Amino acid sequence: MLIVMNHSATQEQIRSVEKAVEAMGLQASPIPGSERTAIGVLGNQGYVDDSTIRELPGVVECIHVSKPYKLVSRDFHPEPTIVEVGPVKIGNGLPPVVMAGPCSIESEAQMLASARVVKAAGAQILRGGAFKPRTGPHSFQGLGVEGLKYLRRAGDEAGLPVVTEVMRIEQLDDVCRYADILQIGARNMQNFDLLKEVGKRRHPVLLKRGMSATLEEFLAAAEYIVAEGNGQVILCERGIRTFEKATRNTLDLSIVPLIRKMSHLPIIVDPSHATGIRALVPVMSKAALVAGAHGLMVEVHPEPEKALCDGAQSLTGEGFATLMGELSGLLKYLGY
Amino acid sequence: MLIVMNHSATQEQIRSVEKAVEAMGLQASPIPGSERTAIGVLGNQGYVDDSTIRELPGVVECIHVSKPYKLVSRDFHPEPTIVEVGPVKIGNGLPPVVMAGPCSIESEAQMLASARVVKAAGAQILRGGAFKPRTGPHSFQGLGVEGLKYLRRAGDEAGLPVVTEVMRIEQLDDVCRYADILQIGARNMQNFDLLKEVGKRRHPVLLKRGMSATLEEFLAAAEYIVAEGNGQVILCERGIRTFEKATRNTLDLSIVPLIRKMSHLPIIVDPSHATGIRALVPVMSKAALVAGAHGLMVEVHPEPEKALCDGAQSLTGEGFATLMGELSGLLKYLGY
Amino acid sequence: MLIVMNHSATQEQIRSVEKAVEAMGLQASPIPGSERTAIGVLGNQGYVDDSTIRELPGVVECIHVSKPYKLVSRDFHPEPTIVEVGPVKIGNGLPPVVMAGPCSIESEAQMLASARVVKAAGAQILRGGAFKPRTGPHSFQGLGVEGLKYLRRAGDEAGLPVVTEVMRIEQLDDVCRYADILQIGARNMQNFDLLKEVGKRRHPVLLKRGMSATLEEFLAAAEYIVAEGNGQVILCERGIRTFEKATRNTLDLSIVPLIRKMSHLPIIVDPSHATGIRALVPVMSKAALVAGAHGLMVEVHPEPEKALCDGAQSLTGEGFATLMGELSGLLKYLGY
Amino acid sequence: MLIVMNHSATQEQIRSVEKAVEAMGLQASPIPGSERTAIGVLGNQGYVDDSTIRELPGVVECIHVSKPYKLVSRDFHPEPTIVEVGPVKIGNGLPPVVMAGPCSIESEAQMLASARVVKAAGAQILRGGAFKPRTGPHSFQGLGVEGLKYLRRAGDEAGLPVVTEVMRIEQLDDVCRYADILQIGARNMQNFDLLKEVGKRRHPVLLKRGMSATLEEFLAAAEYIVAEGNGQVILCERGIRTFEKATRNTLDLSIVPLIRKMSHLPIIVDPSHATGIRALVPVMSKAALVAGAHGLMVEVHPEPEKALCDGAQSLTGEGFATLMGELSGLLKYLGY
Repeated sequence: MLIVMNHSATQEQIRSVEKAVEAMGLQASPIPGSERTAIGVLGNQGYVDDSTIRELPGVVECIHVSKPYKLVSRDFHPEPTIVEVGPVKIGNGLPPVVMAGPCSIESEAQMLASARVVKAAGAQILRGGAFKPRTGPHSFQGLGVEGLKYLRRAGDEAGLPVVTEVMRIEQLDDVCRYADILQIGARNMQNFDLLKEVGKRRHPVLLKRGMSATLEEFLAAAEYIVAEGNGQVILCERGIRTFEKATRNTLDLSIVPLIRKMSHLPIIVDPSHATGIRALVPVMSKAALVAGAHGLMVEVHPEPEKALCDGAQSLTGEGFATLMGELSGLLKYLGY
Repeated sequence: MLIVMNHSATQEQIRSVEKAVEAMGLQASPIPGSERTAIGVLGNQGYVDDSTIRELPGVVECIHVSKPYKLVSRDFHPEPTIVEVGPVKIGNGLPPVVMAGPCSIESEAQMLASARVVKAAGAQILRGGAFKPRTGPHSFQGLGVEGLKYLRRAGDEAGLPVVTEVMRIEQLDDVCRYADILQIGARNMQNFDLLKEVGKRRHPVLLKRGMSATLEEFLAAAEYIVAEGNGQVILCERGIRTFEKATRNTLDLSIVPLIRKMSHLPIIVDPSHATGIRALVPVMSKAALVAGAHGLMVEVHPEPEKALCDGAQSLTGEGFATLMGELSGLLKYLGY
Repeated sequence: MLIVMNHSATQEQIRSVEKAVEAMGLQASPIPGSERTAIGVLGNQGYVDDSTIRELPGVVECIHVSKPYKLVSRDFHPEPTIVEVGPVKIGNGLPPVVMAGPCSIESEAQMLASARVVKAAGAQILRGGAFKPRTGPHSFQGLGVEGLKYLRRAGDEAGLPVVTEVMRIEQLDDVCRYADILQIGARNMQNFDLLKEVGKRRHPVLLKRGMSATLEEFLAAAEYIVAEGNGQVILCERGIRTFEKATRNTLDLSIVPLIRKMSHLPIIVDPSHATGIRALVPVMSKAALVAGAHGLMVEVHPEPEKALCDGAQSLTGEGFATLMGELSGLLKYLGY
Repeated sequence: MLIVMNHSATQEQIRSVEKAVEAMGLQASPIPGSERTAIGVLGNQGYVDDSTIRELPGVVECIHVSKPYKLVSRDFHPEPTIVEVGPVKIGNGLPPVVMAGPCSIESEAQMLASARVVKAAGAQILRGGAFKPRTGPHSFQGLGVEGLKYLRRAGDEAGLPVVTEVMRIEQLDDVCRYADILQIGARNMQNFDLLKEVGKRRHPVLLKRGMSATLEEFLAAAEYIVAEGNGQVILCERGIRTFEKATRNTLDLSIVPLIRKMSHLPIIVDPSHATGIRALVPVMSKAALVAGAHGLMVEVHPEPEKALCDGAQSLTGEGFATLMGELSGLLKYLGY
């Protein structure tokens, strides 16, 4: 950490800050500049809490050099993480993986139809939501455990591993029983208790970026999971909230190569939630793979116009098959 | 809902949209304009899910007239809600209420000292966190149930009701046993399961605005609680995330009079989390009351420089006493 | 426009709003719903100013159906615009065009070297800034007209048309004399006087998106230029300002296919300013083309480590040649 | 500046960075930490351009300690600036000043009526726009020089100094002839040429914050003006662009006490543009003064329902008189 002092800070103020640093068991190393003094803080193992320093007299700001994550950082762990879900492998150097299926599980028939459609088109993993977070209390809230069973049956029939969201710790046992990947939704990215619990399980985790989470917070959330012993974490960019309302969210695609540079965890992209517009999903899927995404998560519904949730951003089975055909050409171009 | 069609939409496309609306059990009422046709949707009770309409051929956009909340709306329920916490009442026409105390409960001694300090200065409610959401896994995570007991004891000794955050449903029984108000933190504003559970309890709820929640989402979150039968909800503005980083968050004070106009629920302000800067807390506390806030939530720590959390935004006991003295003059000016 | 009334709006309030609409020379068409009345506004040619209606008693909100642009809209003008710059053509169905060169013109030698490098690698247009907007007054501000001459000479020598930013109306004659494309920078996207003046010229215009401009505002800015008679406008996405600071801006790539759908103007992408990170420029260039961009604007500097401006986001000549080699493979995949 | 190196940066990489720093004429001072090395940069006079350093191998980030402003900083110039406009003085320790009038000048009669109304209610400065920046080209664009004359006449008749926006350098002579304060609008906050030109004049300048400008950029823009020799600058907070659309902009009131702490320039607030909602203007005006604003800029129109611009956020004459009555009580409370 670097503590920046006022231009007019007194020697006494500088000395007080040094003392406060030393009281934290750290060393203070003043760096006198032509305009002001800065004080380097040495000896810390990881992130330093600046809250007791920041408001001392003469302090302008505290600048962090260490990050609130380390285990997920490529700087400390250069080797890429490969996440394994049954026969499917996700990570650096491997062909991108497509997870597809409906936003929410509505019936057994719908899941079986969805599974067949996405399997036939070439998807490797089946998705479907049994527990749904919805903005208003009067919307469809998901089928719960019954839905999990439909998902599992559909996955088994099609020979596809399945991923589904877990929203609460109490759901964790059920979700672990029926699903292959535990998805943490954007709204729960900083539900730290939930992160710790999934960190204690052995299932791979799909962690979605919170809609107003910075890259640093995103990686720190993953750190919670890895710190508990579960290193099988897949990150997922799904759009952030900005002033622009023409798309549902703003897909932050530049984060993909940046995460590849900063972390060893695989990063996939969800163009369906990011854009919220069906017509943009195929083109942004391709852009995501070119940007370096290790996979995609795409909403597909056999009959989007009858979907109970997010129909407008779901591809039809036909649309998805067309996309998968196009992706196959793209993968060839990309060398897979 | 109003469905806006393309300038060049065909009669056939318009007819298809009408049919889709009718399939939802609603009436479609076309409004031909000089540039394009729009289709009014009538007959709905509340918010309409547009996702099956939005991507039909010829549709430009779906515009919502109904809101995803109704019970918390002043339009439907003009009478103000008064929240009662023991002898303390919060709401329209009543003197603003001050909740104060440390960010996190660190020890029994610290809580007792805090309670004495804030009581002596005139606070009506004691705050303190037993379960702490922290960005990184390596920070102090709170004392848990042990902390709740300290909080209760400190509140009882000082004769102050207490408020504390509940982060998970499993904590709810404990928190209900020891606390008078259940706080839902900003990160959990859209933890809908948790909202529903607190909606089934009889404790008043303090609902903090999510850091990237719109006014509409904020009110829809409160609707979840009220819809379960618990109408004793206090809203709390605590700053939103913007591009500006000079303050921890951007305090959105204009939302206060706007919420007073749109909802019958009381709205308070937390200037400590909003600004993150101790020196700004007193002045923004006063601005909040002038903007119409029904109360304040202020972080106070007997020794901020030793706080385990958020020391830089906590007032000292002395600073808080000064603030309360100033507020007393302000309240007189405001007519209380 | 649709005017949404309060649930509890009186007949008298509804009648007053109707009168206010009629006073604007428009027709009011009430649409009674089960929860509230809405009032359709008919007869307008284009965007309606709602400011006199919005605050009338009983009005909740005014919802716009017409957009503040029409000439640039594909809905009204389905044919794609092809922008012609000497022998170079930009627009739908044509191979994407690459504009490259240094952020700022520093010397004749630097421009000649840059032109040779980007020409050899295959760029079609040379860029370079003579007038530089800089955040602080103590940074390098550009060479002015002298720089324009260097740019022209370098372009002529290499056989490349040139593009450069015009910041003020008084610079317009000079810029028109020496440049082939007039660039309007992000900070001037809503400098409406400047937009109108370039609209009166016959030079093609490159209009960069303002860093906090919505899609609607971006297209409305282009409308200013086209409305004056100059239809040769190229739009340029260059990143928007969000809470995320890991990249210089957030590249909003989804806007590219959306603009292709909504407007007939070509849209290119500037990955250098969007990301601010050299290592991300090549990968995001490729993602942009896959997303449908009609071209790229890339910063290239013969010696980035000596650049007077934006060195960290500039490719070296070698780096640019590598990128162009990769793009050539990508264009083949894309069918050009 | 502090340069943060990778955990795994080699000695050679560190040495290269040191050399690059020295090539800039500065000293490099390595600070070895337990996790990584950081390199302090000493010897700079003001802000250091990091663009040639940021992308060197092994560099993680460059952290700025110096700010891109100095003349406007309280750290270097502790004495408050008092801006004088005829008999009116604005700044620390003085009663807040109210500037009021219509958004745009529509006719001589309208300006004379406005001037009488705001004078009678107690405003000290008259505002009115002759040159209007409008989002779309089909809206009313202002009366130009003719409007300036109406403004001057109205101000003279009422005995009020006048403020009006200058949008282009060519308008500067005219605006200086007729106005007492030169307003730089939000869209022009980074129109650096314009800033420099008004910096060469002797008229006081009212600088509005750009709608996506950080505090640092806002102060750096003021630095442009002061650096040219004109120290009579009034800052104006007028709301920033965020995801929240319930108000026109988000009024960032916390910036007021923060600017008072960081700069010696006066800071006023424009609640009309910030909220865009007439009913919020009075309450946010009061909150602004309590937050420490040195003044207010309020839109007042004799007949808002007939205004050509921004009617919905304009107070009526009567509404303004009521507000001024309330402010008079507030000023007494504030000790003026």
